[in-house]
Amino acid sequence: MSDPFVVIGGDAAGLSAASKFTRAQSDRDVVVFERGRWVSYAHCGTPYYVKGEVERLTDLLSLSPEAAAERGIDLRREHEVVAVDTDAETVTVEHDGETFEQPYGDLLVATGAHAVTAPIDGFDRDMAFTMHGLDSAAAVRAALADPDEPAVDTGIDYVDADLVDHYAAMAPPERVAIVGGGYVGVEMAEAFRAHGLETHVFQRGGHLLSPFGESVCERVADHLRDQGVELHVNCSVEELAGGDSVDAVVYDGGRVPVDLALVGIGVAPNTGLLEDTPVELGPSDAVSVDDYGRTTVDGVYAAGDCAEDDHTVTGEPVWVPLGLTANRAGRAIGQTVAGDPEPVGDVAGTAVVKAFELEAGRVGIIDHDDVRDAGFDPVTTSITAGSRSGYYPGNEETTVSLTADRESGRVLGGSIVGRDRAAIRIDTLATALSSDLTVAELERLDLAYAPPFSPVWDPILVAAKVLRGELE
Amino acid sequence: MSDPFVVIGGDAAGLSAASKFTRAQSDRDVVVFERGRWVSYAHCGTPYYVKGEVERLTDLLSLSPEAAAERGIDLRREHEVVAVDTDAETVTVEHDGETFEQPYGDLLVATGAHAVTAPIDGFDRDMAFTMHGLDSAAAVRAALADPDEPAVDTGIDYVDADLVDHYAAMAPPERVAIVGGGYVGVEMAEAFRAHGLETHVFQRGGHLLSPFGESVCERVADHLRDQGVELHVNCSVEELAGGDSVDAVVYDGGRVPVDLALVGIGVAPNTGLLEDTPVELGPSDAVSVDDYGRTTVDGVYAAGDCAEDDHTVTGEPVWVPLGLTANRAGRAIGQTVAGDPEPVGDVAGTAVVKAFELEAGRVGIIDHDDVRDAGFDPVTTSITAGSRSGYYPGNEETTVSLTADRESGRVLGGSIVGRDRAAIRIDTLATALSSDLTVAELERLDLAYAPPFSPVWDPILVAAKVLRGELE
Repeated sequence: MSDPFVVIGGDAAGLSAASKFTRAQSDRDVVVFERGRWVSYAHCGTPYYVKGEVERLTDLLSLSPEAAAERGIDLRREHEVVAVDTDAETVTVEHDGETFEQPYGDLLVATGAHAVTAPIDGFDRDMAFTMHGLDSAAAVRAALADPDEPAVDTGIDYVDADLVDHYAAMAPPERVAIVGGGYVGVEMAEAFRAHGLETHVFQRGGHLLSPFGESVCERVADHLRDQGVELHVNCSVEELAGGDSVDAVVYDGGRVPVDLALVGIGVAPNTGLLEDTPVELGPSDAVSVDDYGRTTVDGVYAAGDCAEDDHTVTGEPVWVPLGLTANRAGRAIGQTVAGDPEPVGDVAGTAVVKAFELEAGRVGIIDHDDVRDAGFDPVTTSITAGSRSGYYPGNEETTVSLTADRESGRVLGGSIVGRDRAAIRIDTLATALSSDLTVAELERLDLAYAPPFSPVWDPILVAAKVLRGELE
Repeated sequence: MSDPFVVIGGDAAGLSAASKFTRAQSDRDVVVFERGRWVSYAHCGTPYYVKGEVERLTDLLSLSPEAAAERGIDLRREHEVVAVDTDAETVTVEHDGETFEQPYGDLLVATGAHAVTAPIDGFDRDMAFTMHGLDSAAAVRAALADPDEPAVDTGIDYVDADLVDHYAAMAPPERVAIVGGGYVGVEMAEAFRAHGLETHVFQRGGHLLSPFGESVCERVADHLRDQGVELHVNCSVEELAGGDSVDAVVYDGGRVPVDLALVGIGVAPNTGLLEDTPVELGPSDAVSVDDYGRTTVDGVYAAGDCAEDDHTVTGEPVWVPLGLTANRAGRAIGQTVAGDPEPVGDVAGTAVVKAFELEAGRVGIIDHDDVRDAGFDPVTTSITAGSRSGYYPGNEETTVSLTADRESGRVLGGSIVGRDRAAIRIDTLATALSSDLTVAELERLDLAYAPPFSPVWDPILVAAKVLRGELE
């Protein structure tokens, strides 16, 4: 088999696979086609670039094209794969107006996801953004800066200089809207407030960060209000109104004047390329894969934000487009294709977010409808305990929610929120879920205790103790 | 069975047992005999009281005698149990010069541990201290204060006012010695430096914090030196020399003039009371107990710093006198004695310590001799990775060491050290050890990722990845 390992998409999953493959295998080539100019960047860092805590866009690059080349990866940027033929085992590539066929031995589809803006009208106006990709981050940061003091270096190879120049020339906004109260919305609220902007967040449902469960949502909402963010909950945005440029957000029953609108209502997997192939999608409309990232077609793999994974708790396929999952699955597939099969791993739905001074984490299945759909009988408890010994400076109220199955006592999911080292504590629960621990087993864990870091009974142990009482 | 549940010792284990017992059982009485005046205090907080971060000694009380009484606990302070008769099922109690017999239905021995000062001569001099108990903390803080500005409130009921007044009247030290580089030594170095004192730490072996393994020890030692602490390693202290008061530390080959010496070379279980009873001690000389905290004599339990526990990894009895273990075992025994048997839980040897700005944690078995004694073939790796995304402010180098069994790949222990949220990460490893995870399973955990809290690959995942490579 002398045809190369072909990877579609040069971000986390694609380049992790290519890197691992070149380290493990030197006989076959690996070719990565990336339709854009950016490769392997830290998507999760873009809010902090807009905020100004990360100075240069290039700080967000994990692996430069030059470093990829040094690793022996044939990385072709601005090469768009426009068709896949799984019978002929070729992909059709467009570059610079030309089209060519590339045969593959193995194929990895790592096409990622795209930001959704429908059904909101008016997204084509100036000063309407999503936060997806470094070009949109560059555009937003340029838009926030004073035209006399450009904030974005357009001299670097990758950036869309026309887009940046366009926004850099415009007067900076004073009032901004964020449509959608998920991670992106919460992180961007922090970024915009750091620039002193009047900041409105519009949330269609009643809760920000709804996958984190009610106790987190409430504390985050209160904290955002304390930080001067205007929250509009149960509020469906219909249009970003204006002329050339956005000048208001229009929703059912109201209108708020703004100078910039950022839409963060979700992402969807990029699977259009597979439409005419026998590669099957799963229940989430992302690509269905097995434990090794193999699709339903021989020699074709999928990983990252375009693919499903199995859930640690339910064992069922889910679509959780996050960074570690993409890196890990890509790496495993690179190893598998190189001849040493490695499972891509499950996802526990672990997620953490910083909301100004507050930290939150979640893992597993929390929503009671989801829990019942998975065949469990949910019991949830929430407790608030100290992050440190009560007498030690810096002790902060930490709220832990735990959900378990009533019959088996198995821990199914949980969340945590607080100001002091709260988020990272979710890793304890993620590890417990991977091992199918019961609430009683969780309660008996020998967790760390020292006054500066934890009270005698860590908040997670307190939650387990209380939940166990409710299970009996 | 109408005789009461008798508890010897009114600290963490004893009062946890009594509290749980009174909540679960209202028909039988519980009597707690405490030989001192203090009960249920946070031993681990004393260095921060000396440092001045904790203002009042009473802030360190977990449960006041009044609160214990409200819970229905018959708490008798300054009552010393001087003999146990397990045939007659009585204890002999001394109080205020009187002696009486107290029959028991069930008995909990929660007598704690004491600080060891042998074989160091001269500990009877003034200005020689251990850091064990609130009276010694009060004495040290009084000794540090200027006689004109007393630092300790002697008006509170519990404190040894004579001792405090004695030290409060003396001139404060300028140079201090800490003999022993364990937790107490490291925490007290921070406390003394906060008072601006010339601080010498004497360590008999080559490493501070030796249970944390070499990589932690080295970083902590460097950091202590950076903070102006004089370290004397491989240095066996023979004497605290002086006249009435300590004026020098004498060791093999040298002498360092100091005005105060604190000895923190270890603790030993208080088991003398059981010498003439059939209650058996274990290999560590602490009381041997089963999964429910039962000693070898029917109706007699032991918990806390005087008792052994089973180790999570080896299943063998070990003596790990720490706070959570004491609280948890006490609570479980209270419930068991009340009629609803509850295991006391294993210990994983989880420990965390703050050393100035550095945080360290350890868990499991790390030392290769210990690992081999437990029947495993040790492989260890150490890596250094970021605590956050490299581009995010506050990212700090975090060193993780992992030890596994070569044949099974099972994770046996590990340590972590760094400045940013390092210590609490040890809980992930503690949870992994409880579930007998292999290195490959550890590597596939879905741990949290967000730039402010963790890089894509958490340092623990990086360590697992590297160790797995070494196992193959």
